[in-house]
Amino acid sequence: MTARVAIVGAGPIGCAAAAFLVRAGHAPAMWSPTAGRLRRDRDAATVACTGALQGKVEFELLDSPDRLADFPVVLVCLPANAYAAVLGPLNAGWRSGQHVVVSGALSLAPLWIAAAAMGVQVTGWATTLTTAHFQQDGLLHVNPLRSRIDMATVGAAGAASARQTCAQLFGERFVAADSLLAPALANINPIAHAAEVIPNLTRMESGEAWSLFGNFTPVVGRLAEGLDRERRAVAMAFGLELPSLQQHYARSYHVPQGPLHTMAAAIVRNGMSPNGPAVLEHRYVLEDAPFGLAFLEALGGVADVRTPVLTACLSLLAAAYARDFRADNFLLDALGIPGTAVGTLLARCAAAASPASRAR
Amino acid sequence: MTARVAIVGAGPIGCAAAAFLVRAGHAPAMWSPTAGRLRRDRDAATVACTGALQGKVEFELLDSPDRLADFPVVLVCLPANAYAAVLGPLNAGWRSGQHVVVSGALSLAPLWIAAAAMGVQVTGWATTLTTAHFQQDGLLHVNPLRSRIDMATVGAAGAASARQTCAQLFGERFVAADSLLAPALANINPIAHAAEVIPNLTRMESGEAWSLFGNFTPVVGRLAEGLDRERRAVAMAFGLELPSLQQHYARSYHVPQGPLHTMAAAIVRNGMSPNGPAVLEHRYVLEDAPFGLAFLEALGGVADVRTPVLTACLSLLAAAYARDFRADNFLLDALGIPGTAVGTLLARCAAAASPASRAR
Repeated sequence: MTARVAIVGAGPIGCAAAAFLVRAGHAPAMWSPTAGRLRRDRDAATVACTGALQGKVEFELLDSPDRLADFPVVLVCLPANAYAAVLGPLNAGWRSGQHVVVSGALSLAPLWIAAAAMGVQVTGWATTLTTAHFQQDGLLHVNPLRSRIDMATVGAAGAASARQTCAQLFGERFVAADSLLAPALANINPIAHAAEVIPNLTRMESGEAWSLFGNFTPVVGRLAEGLDRERRAVAMAFGLELPSLQQHYARSYHVPQGPLHTMAAAIVRNGMSPNGPAVLEHRYVLEDAPFGLAFLEALGGVADVRTPVLTACLSLLAAAYARDFRADNFLLDALGIPGTAVGTLLARCAAAASPASRAR
Repeated sequence: MTARVAIVGAGPIGCAAAAFLVRAGHAPAMWSPTAGRLRRDRDAATVACTGALQGKVEFELLDSPDRLADFPVVLVCLPANAYAAVLGPLNAGWRSGQHVVVSGALSLAPLWIAAAAMGVQVTGWATTLTTAHFQQDGLLHVNPLRSRIDMATVGAAGAASARQTCAQLFGERFVAADSLLAPALANINPIAHAAEVIPNLTRMESGEAWSLFGNFTPVVGRLAEGLDRERRAVAMAFGLELPSLQQHYARSYHVPQGPLHTMAAAIVRNGMSPNGPAVLEHRYVLEDAPFGLAFLEALGGVADVRTPVLTACLSLLAAAYARDFRADNFLLDALGIPGTAVGTLLARCAAAASPASRAR
């Protein structure tokens, strides 16, 4: 069955999702304010893939965001620091019955969409379908698809139906949680990136070619562990017992569990370490500091959980970049997170169980 | 006139001070629990100098700390993280009328000595006479002597007399302040080192050969500026208007004042950048975090001055090293700094003006 799916976002992740859907026999269409950067022929874009997906794929480019209303499912593939500019204007246009799926949803963005549009089903994935990047030769290099993606949903259709939609489109890899907080807090990227970036800031700034896991030293490991302890303590205060960063790396990279820096060394030996960011203005900071770290810090504030290492990383990055990353996260105020209570937030994040999901 | 001066500490700074005194015609003696590392002939040590001081010098090694009581002036050349172990046991032995001078005094150590021994004059220098290091060939490389050293003193003899003693021994380079807080807060090393170290931690840890000022990037500069603003705000709350880090670098390195990273680039062009630390366990962290950063943070607490960047750097280093650097500073509790008031601390740090200094 060919499904009509729209993708918002023309970056590597959006293009990889489009390529996956084409290969799976679907007919995705894409809207993005930056789609002009893609190779196009009239209203179709062509992307040539290498890696986990191969060959050329073609998909429709939408000339106006108004056309998104025609699609029953819309997958949002945006870095969180593009939410306000790109997703904000779309919020008025969603129609009842649509299913908006936010890939790698940070900072409870699905709640914000759900609050803006009555009757819309909104699903958040803890992470993206895969990672990918455009090579210098223009090819899209797609890494292996993630075997497991945690998700949660809000809306009338319920968790089971939302999970089924995701699986029909993107394969059997989705684990549905009862609360949007679960995928939001299960995302280990913001804390891992902060620990990787801060002790390597001058390498980024100087455009050095540096191995991300090759420079995952004991210092990086201890920093990551400190951040991870705080992430899980915050999650626990919301009733969520989450796997540790070690467990996550063991699962993702198939290396034996141990101290993080020895796991990183094993990842390097397996030839699986990408290079770290070679510019300061990188999503590991611009996206993850406001929408990852500041979000966790704010939840810690709600639940009265101390987060000194999170706060240290945020304040240090703010000073190093001369930029108030906490203020960059417009979602905290938009969702009224400062000043809310644990119970209130839990209730807002709970998936409305549909008859189907209740019957599980 | 040959003066009898004892030096406590056998590191590069203590040896450089001894060499300077020998060259100036004095007869220094040294006591250190680690003096065994020096080349010695019976009770004399020999140090061969290069750089700003040249040639071999010989000075007496004291076989017991009890002998320090014989010396009218004792110069303490210790990293602050050796205060507790080395200086602590000496505090019971000072005799009335002695003058103890603490070179590069951190965290108001002179107050601690003065409180332990009645009638002792205690002077704190904001920095050391010079910087120096032992080369692999065993030569002591001595950098140019500092042209200005801020100092302050507590005790009956008064500021003018203490300044005169320092100048007679070490030359005309001393500027006496009215309060021990002045040299303690004028020391820019702890904040500069924190800014230099944190974004380069993996370089230190991997033993990389990295240029300290060559890696003084805009990120390092902004971090240093953030820390410097807080240092000066704390000083201002104690009535001290201090020169900025920029002014300090302009004076020390003879480069035009500007953004810190451009000043650092000029220092590199002038061939004046040393390499950064190539080990994690380095005084830039082990000494400066507890006795510099935690001290400033504690003074901020006393004066109700917000210090988020200082706190961020301290908490980040604590997480990265898995070590409570705040607890490492025993002086904070020994001096009763948490819980004291600005006026109380100012009164304790004020130099007792002697008739001579009143007459200035």
